[in-house]
Amino acid sequence: MTDLETSMATIIAVFQKYSEREGDRHKLKKSELKELLQEELPGLMAHVKDQASLDSLMEGLDTDGDSECDFQEFMTFISIVTVCCHDFFAHEDE
Amino acid sequence: MTDLETSMATIIAVFQKYSEREGDRHKLKKSELKELLQEELPGLMAHVKDQASLDSLMEGLDTDGDSECDFQEFMTFISIVTVCCHDFFAHEDE
Repeated sequence: MTDLETSMATIIAVFQKYSEREGDRHKLKKSELKELLQEELPGLMAHVKDQASLDSLMEGLDTDGDSECDFQEFMTFISIVTVCCHDFFAHEDE
Repeated sequence: MTDLETSMATIIAVFQKYSEREGDRHKLKKSELKELLQEELPGLMAHVKDQASLDSLMEGLDTDGDSECDFQEFMTFISIVTVCCHDFFAHEDE
């Protein structure tokens, strides 16, 4: 696999590692999502300092309002964070 | 960095590797996008057999109609392909 293909497979694998833990194995419940964010995106989570910010982030992710985060919702979130990182570094070198 | 953070950084790095080659260094022109798809997503491109399909794929990516693909448009495309891959493997094991 190329680096890009491996990256896409890794995003799927990380989601599944947490979604399979409890309940619906194709969705992240709130506790699974919290663990994923804290363990896999520590750099981002360092900026989410209080429970209210975390709740608000998780509500924003759950676009269909079922209180769980499916892979499409998770991928949308990863996209937004990646675009923000890209914009940050793109402006850094100008 | 965690595997998820490395994956996000890799997607940005692959985009930049091609976008920097010619013209606007923050956007993929059509020839750069074609090279990226052929070299970095060979598994997907095996299903895009003719020039008309490739043209149609590239037009679909260019949501703001400037004939170039910026990082946000590229990330949307990567998201759609990753969600399709996830759905395929999720149904495989049922």
